[in-house]
Amino acid sequence: MPDYDAIKAELDGIAIEDNPKLVRQKSRDFFWYSPILKDQLDNVTADLVVSPASEEEVIRTLKVAFAHGVPVTPRGSGTGNYGQAMPLSGGIVLSLAKMNEVREIHPGRVVAGPGAIIAEIDRQARAHSGQELRFHPSTANTATIAGFVAGGSGGVGSINWGGLRDLGNVLRLRVVTMEAEPRVLDLSAWDLQKVTHAYGTNGIITEVEMPLTAAYDWVDVLVGFDDFMDAVRFSDALAHENGLLVKEIAPIAAPVPYQFFSRHKQYVRPDQSVVVTMVAPQAIGAFLAFAAKAKGEILFRADTAESLKGLPQAFELTWNHTTLRALKVDPSITYLQVAYPGPDHVRKVEQMTKLFGDEVPGHLEFIRFSGQIQCSGLPLVRFTTKERLEEIIRIHEDHGCPVFNPHRYTLEEGGMKRTDAVQLAFKHETDPKGLLNPGKMIAWENPDFDFSSGKTFLFPGLATR
Amino acid sequence: MPDYDAIKAELDGIAIEDNPKLVRQKSRDFFWYSPILKDQLDNVTADLVVSPASEEEVIRTLKVAFAHGVPVTPRGSGTGNYGQAMPLSGGIVLSLAKMNEVREIHPGRVVAGPGAIIAEIDRQARAHSGQELRFHPSTANTATIAGFVAGGSGGVGSINWGGLRDLGNVLRLRVVTMEAEPRVLDLSAWDLQKVTHAYGTNGIITEVEMPLTAAYDWVDVLVGFDDFMDAVRFSDALAHENGLLVKEIAPIAAPVPYQFFSRHKQYVRPDQSVVVTMVAPQAIGAFLAFAAKAKGEILFRADTAESLKGLPQAFELTWNHTTLRALKVDPSITYLQVAYPGPDHVRKVEQMTKLFGDEVPGHLEFIRFSGQIQCSGLPLVRFTTKERLEEIIRIHEDHGCPVFNPHRYTLEEGGMKRTDAVQLAFKHETDPKGLLNPGKMIAWENPDFDFSSGKTFLFPGLATR
Ligand SMILES: Cc1cc2nc3c(=O)[nH]c(=O)nc-3n(C[C@H](O)[C@H](O)[C@H](O)COP(=O)(O)OP(=O)(O)OC[C@H]3O[C@@H](n4cnc5c(N)ncnc54)[C@H](O)[C@@H]3O)c2cc1C
Ligand SMILES: Cc1cc2nc3c(=O)[nH]c(=O)nc-3n(C[C@H](O)[C@H](O)[C@H](O)COP(=O)(O)OP(=O)(O)OC[C@H]3O[C@@H](n4cnc5c(N)ncnc54)[C@H](O)[C@@H]3O)c2cc1C
Repeated sequence: MPDYDAIKAELDGIAIEDNPKLVRQKSRDFFWYSPILKDQLDNVTADLVVSPASEEEVIRTLKVAFAHGVPVTPRGSGTGNYGQAMPLSGGIVLSLAKMNEVREIHPGRVVAGPGAIIAEIDRQARAHSGQELRFHPSTANTATIAGFVAGGSGGVGSINWGGLRDLGNVLRLRVVTMEAEPRVLDLSAWDLQKVTHAYGTNGIITEVEMPLTAAYDWVDVLVGFDDFMDAVRFSDALAHENGLLVKEIAPIAAPVPYQFFSRHKQYVRPDQSVVVTMVAPQAIGAFLAFAAKAKGEILFRADTAESLKGLPQAFELTWNHTTLRALKVDPSITYLQVAYPGPDHVRKVEQMTKLFGDEVPGHLEFIRFSGQIQCSGLPLVRFTTKERLEEIIRIHEDHGCPVFNPHRYTLEEGGMKRTDAVQLAFKHETDPKGLLNPGKMIAWENPDFDFSSGKTFLFPGLATR
Repeated sequence: MPDYDAIKAELDGIAIEDNPKLVRQKSRDFFWYSPILKDQLDNVTADLVVSPASEEEVIRTLKVAFAHGVPVTPRGSGTGNYGQAMPLSGGIVLSLAKMNEVREIHPGRVVAGPGAIIAEIDRQARAHSGQELRFHPSTANTATIAGFVAGGSGGVGSINWGGLRDLGNVLRLRVVTMEAEPRVLDLSAWDLQKVTHAYGTNGIITEVEMPLTAAYDWVDVLVGFDDFMDAVRFSDALAHENGLLVKEIAPIAAPVPYQFFSRHKQYVRPDQSVVVTMVAPQAIGAFLAFAAKAKGEILFRADTAESLKGLPQAFELTWNHTTLRALKVDPSITYLQVAYPGPDHVRKVEQMTKLFGDEVPGHLEFIRFSGQIQCSGLPLVRFTTKERLEEIIRIHEDHGCPVFNPHRYTLEEGGMKRTDAVQLAFKHETDPKGLLNPGKMIAWENPDFDFSSGKTFLFPGLATR
């Protein structure tokens, strides 16, 4: 057991929390989304929460932790949903929440502290010069920018810009290493892959530079279809319209919208599948013409709604918020993350829809993936047993639909990130004692790990680039 | 022969030109690009040029012309290169050049008079709110916005937004009909197809509303490759990078850049193929990393160049400006417009490159076409005979590469626009006497025209939508 009294003394002047109740609170994220992770991780807790207010305090903290051999798990807002921010080996949770300043805004880019809340960056960029981030998770209102970069993948806006894995979608990261004398590295271009979606296993992000794009007063529009596959085909066609600017396209199968979207329920019939969209105001005319041609029923338009009181923004019906809303109503619900590789993604969705029906109600997110329109899925699962869940996953994979298992807390098993020798070498450099968020990178824990296990990874390895 | 004295009297107060030399000048465009059109159209001239200063003067002019049965051919700046604006049956050339005001700028959209110069719209939108048009022809510095909408198809920026054919890329057109009592129509959404790329055959555009996007200080970058196909593969990969914001990607085969780009020649070796790009400033770092990985040589970067004096902007090396520069040096050069339908567009380009070598030096423009990255080509042709030109076209088409023949002045033969019954009916409504730009729409001239002749058209018909 490390000597926490000595550690606290050495961290004098930096905000510290050691009340076990509060520490436990800050040791948890949305892992409970998964019935499997819920069992596995429920007892995880740190010993101390440290909340540095500056990069200098981050450096001091890492230095002390390194000297004492104490694990450090960084934390933004703890909205990750695979236990990313949970300190499996205890030690220190390093909260970056205080470093939340938006530092600079320029045409096309913003510089922010790691703990800046995503929606706050957007608010300031919009006020400053009509700009906003290219895309954000549906947790934008609470999540931090560094937590997104380190633990997320994409979201609202990915239909236009792809995801965090794509070159150019993060401009620069400033990272502090976990060494006797922590170094500060400025990473850009290919090197960013070392730190994006790495769950903070190889450096603490202390500054983020992200590209900006034009901000619009996006109009939330819900379009209804009697048949889920009509909703999917409409979404796919819409995504292929070069000139029709939308920020979000998510078809969600009946009865999910009626059953789980408590605030929007008033607009939807029980048997209606819904496409949730965000449309640029200048595109509304063309959008309505396009929807009419596809026989979509306009269920809700924020720009003409009588009142928006009590209604969440449409993006808080999408991505993992769809799951969240379902879970709130029916705690037995869980979900998957599925890729339907194109160009026959629509056919693949149709196959899965036919096979599983209401046991796995469809929820797709249309995205631009390596320059091509595709859809990924976050279908709900009416959970019965772990065995059946594994079977559902297997059937998807047997049909060419790889599953990024959201019921795993490691980088590799979740299937999002391919670790490779370059990656591992980088961790050896930046975290030689393996103290950063231990337990999350299998390749580190198991030196015999087979890098070429052949899975589909959303974040490519580094050696290949 | 119409009574032009009476006509002039009736048009009293509107600017008129009847000096035959000046009228002939305003009756010509860049038709001479094509050795074939040059022969066919060289004697074409109008009788009168009328230059209305307002919509009201447009209406008056059409009314008078209708009463006298005089043809009216609208004209912007006359930069069309298929004789679009040439009055095949004489009559009046209606110059819209005076109606050049930028009328309103809002977030995401601009309203302008038909004669507004495209680059001037961009200048004002940028100064107003950091915005610009989504895409523009390489003639932006001289061409008018209505001339582009009525006679063009796409250009610089089409890699991100597609072209004028795409729903949402034109928001609204105000059009005056050619009737005894001209009507003013406001067209939007699907109806726009009636007027876009219709060469002014079914209405005079008096106001244009276009979407805007974020303006950046785009950086011209030339990337060199020893092998044209490496340049093509680099361009294709670049176009597929979701996060790397560029506005233009044009690979141009050696020896064209060295031989014909007189101002940029200093940066290029004779045997180098060049990819002309425009890169967002915030993307430069990632772009350079990407180019280095592809072993592209950075030949020129406008952001670090010692002097830009005398250098045209990079976009004036692309689209039909590539052809123009070649023609200036070697008047025997001509060109084609080729589609290489994806997803195997790169393979198709390779086949053509192997088949023709330096007889047809490659020039591609990467674009987003119905949501997919594709390339279209404007290859140069070292012209020998008309027969050989037709043969080159046939060989392209035999290999699955449709040619939009730039040596034809009709809408249908150029292959850009599918006319159909809806289109034709619209012309019957808006131009019952067939006085607008006569001779350009075969379907009108020949009532037995087969609408389903099976060609590839860039602008779809209306019946199908
Ligand atoms: C309802 C819901 C919806 C969601 N929707 C999306 C979505 O649309 N897209 C998406 O990608 N994700 C989504 N997520 C996951 C998550 O909300 C986002 O990725 C979010 O951006 C994480 O930010 P955070 O501040 O909460 O990070 P945390 O959860 O606090 O941390 C995430 C990871 O980053 C690490 N980390 C945090 N800060 C740093 C730092 N400064 N340096 C190094 N590592 C650090 C943590 O250790 C952890 O591994 C969703 C989750 C929920 C619960
Ligand atoms: C070097 C060069 C490069 C080019 N590059 C491109 C390119 O990148 N992309 C592209 O699409 N085109 C290109 N073009 C073609 C042409 O320059 C553009 O389409 C340009 O926008 C036409 O504008 P303009 O004002 O010159 O139109 P004009 O040539 O004057 O007219 C074009 C057509 O529109 C009609 N018209 C004009 N005004 C009106 C009106 N108010 N109402 C109804 N009809 C009207 C005319 O009758 C004519 O049929 C190029 C041409 C050249 C010579």
